[in-house]
Amino acid sequence: MEKKILVEISARHVHLSDADLEVLFGKGYQLNKLKDLSQPGQYAAEERVSIKGPRSQMDRVIILGPTRSETQVEVSATDARTLGITTEIRMSGDTKDTPGVTLIGPKGSVKLKRGLIIAKRHIHVTPEEAKGYGIEDGENVSVKIDNQERSLTFDDVIVRVNENFSAAMHIDTDEGNAANIPGSTMGTILK
Amino acid sequence: MEKKILVEISARHVHLSDADLEVLFGKGYQLNKLKDLSQPGQYAAEERVSIKGPRSQMDRVIILGPTRSETQVEVSATDARTLGITTEIRMSGDTKDTPGVTLIGPKGSVKLKRGLIIAKRHIHVTPEEAKGYGIEDGENVSVKIDNQERSLTFDDVIVRVNENFSAAMHIDTDEGNAANIPGSTMGTILK
Repeated sequence: MEKKILVEISARHVHLSDADLEVLFGKGYQLNKLKDLSQPGQYAAEERVSIKGPRSQMDRVIILGPTRSETQVEVSATDARTLGITTEIRMSGDTKDTPGVTLIGPKGSVKLKRGLIIAKRHIHVTPEEAKGYGIEDGENVSVKIDNQERSLTFDDVIVRVNENFSAAMHIDTDEGNAANIPGSTMGTILK
Repeated sequence: MEKKILVEISARHVHLSDADLEVLFGKGYQLNKLKDLSQPGQYAAEERVSIKGPRSQMDRVIILGPTRSETQVEVSATDARTLGITTEIRMSGDTKDTPGVTLIGPKGSVKLKRGLIIAKRHIHVTPEEAKGYGIEDGENVSVKIDNQERSLTFDDVIVRVNENFSAAMHIDTDEGNAANIPGSTMGTILK
């Protein structure tokens, strides 16, 4: 199988719990889908929120749906510095002992106790796709990006396998800029 | 020779011409050295300026001395987007057809016609150091960064050889964040 994989840049975004969604947007509020994402069932919502740290506030931050069991805010290391918050590189969902941040919506605000992370670069694949690529859940692989000005090879790319995924690598805006990727590109999985 | 090289992150900064220094800080003004940089004769000045684009203004941007024949502003791709200016990845000094930006100092402001660039990653070495590393001026090499969370290999690293240099690789903050480098680290030159 060809080892090419779609590489997508995730700009800063927020996943909300039902409870926090209600505080920010009002009781019983439901997110409205703006557009589907590459991962089945995941979407960018029409709604936006502000995130506020000790040094600055960022407005119109994208909310990804559907809601989750816990609110999580994913930013780049550049963003974290701009907000004035020191946090860690974590896999999505691994928010233990991470710092919080304040979310501000049209109906209220939430001061998170934890949940601000810099996302660890990763690959989403179905079990079948994983077999095709010759990679396994939890494995650490490398992905090469080729272009004119800033080719590079990302190591420490964690593989996540799930029936509900679709083959794509996710990196943040700092990583995208370091590889001069305009939105998305194709990378090559190296092992 | 060991292929290890110092890797330093350059945050956004400005190089000023004598003429622009005078407009920003006053007639006959001289920069005051805050601290020496790794490259002999180069220093961070005590003075700061603001840079202003159509979308935002960034304050307290570092000025590097001594003055140069032409003013140049080096930012990350993240910064360029925040400022609201589309520019290119260029080697220092290669400012032809690049966009300008407005500089604001305590005594005046300068609307640059050109000079805003995203610096292309590069290595500075003396002729002797180049020989030791087995690399040449203008060559394109790769440099591997090893750490816990975000190891990677930067390709498209341009070698610049000059008697007045000292062995160091320079990357911007996006690239530093993509490799999880806290300020500086040691990399390994691969060919």
